[in-house]
Amino acid sequence: MRAMTIDPARLQPMANAIRALSMDAVQAANSGHPGMPMGMADVASVLFSRHLKFDPARPDWADRDRFVLSAGHGSMLIYSLLHLTGYAHPTMDEIRNFRQLGSPCAGHPENFLLEGVECTTGPLGQGLAMAVGIAMAERHLNAVFGDDLVNHRTWVIVGDGCLMEGINHEAIGLAGHLKLGRMIVLWDDNNITIDGTADLSTSENIKARYEATGWHVVACDGHDFAAIDRALEEAKNDPRPSLVACKTVIGKGAPNKQGTSATHGAPLGADEIAAARVELGWEPAPFEVPAEILADWRATGEAGAAEHGAWEQRLAASPHKAKFEAQMAGVADHASAAIEGHIRALAADPQKVATRKASEMALGPLTETLPQLIGGSADLTGSNNTKTKSTLPMSADDYSGRYVYYGIREFGMAAAMNGMALHGGVVPYGGTFLIFSDYCRNAIRLSALQKVGVVYVMTHDSIGLGEDGPTHQPVEHVMSLRLIPNLNTYRPCDAIETAECWALALSTPETPSVLALSRQNLPQLRGECDGEWTVEYNACAKGGYRLRSAQNTRKVVLVASGSEVALAMECADQLEAAGVGADVVSMPCTELFDAQSDAYKADILPDDALIVSIEAGSTLGWERYTGRGGLNIGIDSFGASAPADDLFAHYGFTADQIVPKIQNKLNN
Amino acid sequence: MRAMTIDPARLQPMANAIRALSMDAVQAANSGHPGMPMGMADVASVLFSRHLKFDPARPDWADRDRFVLSAGHGSMLIYSLLHLTGYAHPTMDEIRNFRQLGSPCAGHPENFLLEGVECTTGPLGQGLAMAVGIAMAERHLNAVFGDDLVNHRTWVIVGDGCLMEGINHEAIGLAGHLKLGRMIVLWDDNNITIDGTADLSTSENIKARYEATGWHVVACDGHDFAAIDRALEEAKNDPRPSLVACKTVIGKGAPNKQGTSATHGAPLGADEIAAARVELGWEPAPFEVPAEILADWRATGEAGAAEHGAWEQRLAASPHKAKFEAQMAGVADHASAAIEGHIRALAADPQKVATRKASEMALGPLTETLPQLIGGSADLTGSNNTKTKSTLPMSADDYSGRYVYYGIREFGMAAAMNGMALHGGVVPYGGTFLIFSDYCRNAIRLSALQKVGVVYVMTHDSIGLGEDGPTHQPVEHVMSLRLIPNLNTYRPCDAIETAECWALALSTPETPSVLALSRQNLPQLRGECDGEWTVEYNACAKGGYRLRSAQNTRKVVLVASGSEVALAMECADQLEAAGVGADVVSMPCTELFDAQSDAYKADILPDDALIVSIEAGSTLGWERYTGRGGLNIGIDSFGASAPADDLFAHYGFTADQIVPKIQNKLNN
Repeated sequence: MRAMTIDPARLQPMANAIRALSMDAVQAANSGHPGMPMGMADVASVLFSRHLKFDPARPDWADRDRFVLSAGHGSMLIYSLLHLTGYAHPTMDEIRNFRQLGSPCAGHPENFLLEGVECTTGPLGQGLAMAVGIAMAERHLNAVFGDDLVNHRTWVIVGDGCLMEGINHEAIGLAGHLKLGRMIVLWDDNNITIDGTADLSTSENIKARYEATGWHVVACDGHDFAAIDRALEEAKNDPRPSLVACKTVIGKGAPNKQGTSATHGAPLGADEIAAARVELGWEPAPFEVPAEILADWRATGEAGAAEHGAWEQRLAASPHKAKFEAQMAGVADHASAAIEGHIRALAADPQKVATRKASEMALGPLTETLPQLIGGSADLTGSNNTKTKSTLPMSADDYSGRYVYYGIREFGMAAAMNGMALHGGVVPYGGTFLIFSDYCRNAIRLSALQKVGVVYVMTHDSIGLGEDGPTHQPVEHVMSLRLIPNLNTYRPCDAIETAECWALALSTPETPSVLALSRQNLPQLRGECDGEWTVEYNACAKGGYRLRSAQNTRKVVLVASGSEVALAMECADQLEAAGVGADVVSMPCTELFDAQSDAYKADILPDDALIVSIEAGSTLGWERYTGRGGLNIGIDSFGASAPADDLFAHYGFTADQIVPKIQNKLNN
Repeated sequence: MRAMTIDPARLQPMANAIRALSMDAVQAANSGHPGMPMGMADVASVLFSRHLKFDPARPDWADRDRFVLSAGHGSMLIYSLLHLTGYAHPTMDEIRNFRQLGSPCAGHPENFLLEGVECTTGPLGQGLAMAVGIAMAERHLNAVFGDDLVNHRTWVIVGDGCLMEGINHEAIGLAGHLKLGRMIVLWDDNNITIDGTADLSTSENIKARYEATGWHVVACDGHDFAAIDRALEEAKNDPRPSLVACKTVIGKGAPNKQGTSATHGAPLGADEIAAARVELGWEPAPFEVPAEILADWRATGEAGAAEHGAWEQRLAASPHKAKFEAQMAGVADHASAAIEGHIRALAADPQKVATRKASEMALGPLTETLPQLIGGSADLTGSNNTKTKSTLPMSADDYSGRYVYYGIREFGMAAAMNGMALHGGVVPYGGTFLIFSDYCRNAIRLSALQKVGVVYVMTHDSIGLGEDGPTHQPVEHVMSLRLIPNLNTYRPCDAIETAECWALALSTPETPSVLALSRQNLPQLRGECDGEWTVEYNACAKGGYRLRSAQNTRKVVLVASGSEVALAMECADQLEAAGVGADVVSMPCTELFDAQSDAYKADILPDDALIVSIEAGSTLGWERYTGRGGLNIGIDSFGASAPADDLFAHYGFTADQIVPKIQNKLNN
């Protein structure tokens, strides 16, 4: 229990300060969402003044409570709270510049712009799902380090939109199953969506649904401070994750528009703001907060310093201090070293395995050495090869485990991984079939936008999947993932490249990675010829490199990724036998290749050779490397159901079909 | 009630025929999923022999019940049923070739390979969600044409996987809200997922969740024919949509493996198959079905002929016959004519509007003229501009409406649209922000794979969205949608192109379309200069075309789409003023352009000019048109929160910033 008491004469003006800042900022920007911050101002005031554990002076305090505004369009709520409670940012000037270029007060909260914003939110439902990951990370680290060092809650504000999105089902199912009792969801129960009242499109009993999913549910009047406080207290004391249904009026305080969708996503207008000022008894000028109200808010912020100080003392005295700090520091500086021995062993004793199997082999030493790694799969553990002997199951009975059975919840898994990474202290990786990147695509995008280095282990990466057919065969997916900014998409060609790509993926804590891995076995193409592998020498680090140089005069450069690199080697053999010199370039990561110098790129892809791309997927995009005059071997239609070898032959992926095309192109 | 009685002595061998075919086919393919067909054989036998309305001789009978195998991996269940009940396909030879190239018995059921397969399934949860759309189409057409012509049920088999996926929440929420009482879901309640028992990852009370969502729930022993029959009868008689929880044993009949995940996705093996034959008392050779059992199955198929005949008589006698047949024939032959007047009016009186507004303007005459069009939005009606005065709301009280308030359920909406289109008689279009194509991407892919001409109205198509910031600003999305095979992605530049693209989108019943539309106003670039628009002349039909020819000697070709075409015109003005001739090519649909002749493409994108692409999105992919020596103006990072004009300037999208880059490139 924190400093403030339940005194409406104190809390009401504090809440109204949020309302005033929200409507003024939206009005000034002529854009934004006043309804939600005004509706949830009372609930948020109770939460921040009496329940949330935080220290505005140290937003990075590891044991702070996490607050996630899943209904991210209500961003002025969190900007108001951060400013009022005393965070260094946003300043009032930054709030005045809400939604303007350069202000950290963006339209939706962005974790990379403001401390205190734990997650980037706005895409509905994902804040809730990330919060599940945050709560999982907290329980895991608690199990490892104990209550003294890790003992905090995760609070989430959701709207009706979050609860209609499918991902909320996956998220609360996982949270209920894992009994994440320190997660508390505050539902802004205002019965309003953009198109009108919520009952225009839903008839669901949300409380009953949560109860059916293993949650504790409590309801309160979201404008009655004492009732809110009682509900939050009850939620804190229940061992299950809690849903607090806060019955609110959207836009509360705007006398003519409150309770309607008109307040949701547009400025109230000067007249209605004037009326609201009367209604709220709010006299200060826009963007002004009276000193006594600001003082009350700042006091709530300052109250956290004592708790934080006590924690710092416990940490200083803890025998686990060094281990805790190492855990929180992440894996980036240790990944390459952790895998060096494995790669040397592969170079000495080549293995013909599927790259999904190669990934499992790489994960052996990685998970053994790096305790931060938490693996998992969306119910494809045996297919994704994501579990190692170091990663025991995480369960409600034992959170110390490092393997999550996510269930058939790809989107929920990806968002939970984002949450775990944002929490810090753990580095998540998770598997599914590459085709189901479609199911979690926006969470992958949010990994990239939020700059978290999670790793997606996406197996069965082409028609090489075989018999399951076109619904399960990625065609456009590798290229489509390459399009997402700040995401590295790796498609390694053999066991050594797979290990190298793992090392790279774990070395970029601000860039997420996708590993696209084969179902089928692939020969090891790297080995003795490279000499001894060292940490400094990771061929994949340049994204693309010459795997073999032409023997005859070079006329062709074959550029391939993943399972098609071995095919390119076969093609090169045939071309060389016919007197045509052909380089083979392995291109496991186009994003890293694009970042190389022009000179390097010109050396690898010279102007005077026919450049041929070979990849069992979309050709669109490969013209960046081959030009309009090159040749693109790919698949621009859907796959089919058949054994993999039959499919590769059917779609033209044999040297006997490709080499004549190259010869033909050379002769024209 | 159909011909078969509840006589276990007759039904059990019929069900065992499914089991035998399933385990034999999976064994022969050495790949596949025997567990589900063996577990649900008894339920399916009761359904097909006593409840399902179908006529194997006429799989296209409009008033047939629809059967959707949402748990598509259990494909041998439906292949067995189609063969046994007397559909022309699959033949036994085709079943023997299960999962082989050329067999219609693909790994997962594909609607384009076999009649009787209503939907392509396999991506979990989507069959269920498509079934919601099927049931919506049925109720709508029933409301329009009455019980005599439209009066059928939608049956769905789902597994635990379908019910863990988030989309199931969206689907059943929509179905519950719309009170789709003729939809019945049979849940294969076997407590098994790939990773182990379902309780490894879920603790949910599924029945209570369905009840909380407005569904009727009934349970039965899935191996007790009488109990199954009673449950299905109860479901049929309840006015709500029904969940029938069928308690089953996965792989039932395989004595040593049944009830375990070992039967889920791998052949049983010769020994276990032999043991199962003993267990089931099944003596015939593989792929043989005794004549008396086949006769019983064929009798159930033939029983539907009488019902079908009676329906044909009602249709022949109906005053609505011509209207019904026209409705079922679709819109492809009428879309261009329906919009001709609108385009002529625009040519005569140019409009500066956002293309989302232009879309609404086009939808006016389209929805007025074409009764098949059913619109909707995922809670962004006013932003997507999807509602017209001809489209009144569809609701549980009035299914005749043609506008669906889908709620905040993008994935559910997209899948429901697929289901509606697959049902036939309606042509759905639905809106959301382009960014949220991520949320429904796999359903868009399934539109394309299933060859249904649904139309996605995706607005706010770039950083031009402005203040909502990077979570809401598409960057990679247009290019990423272009990668999906058999999908046309349109990005029109003005009101006339928008109307033309609508006409094209509605003219391809086997190819879905995405319309990427601007939030911001755009000048009308087409008009008088074109002369009079005729149905035959739709400039967008070639995908890309020369909008303006160079006045000076052509050195540059500017290729742009959507909102950047007007910018390309400005750049051309500046270049021409400097004596540099520049064509402007509008490229609303790269997929259609790619399909043109080499000569046409060479004329539009000549080798002797600098080709410059301008699109406010990913540059990767544009090299197909510009080559490696061209210039790509785009955005390869995330957006930001600010007014649109500020963002365009910040990201370099002004003529003053682009033209010097072009001049520089020309001079090097």
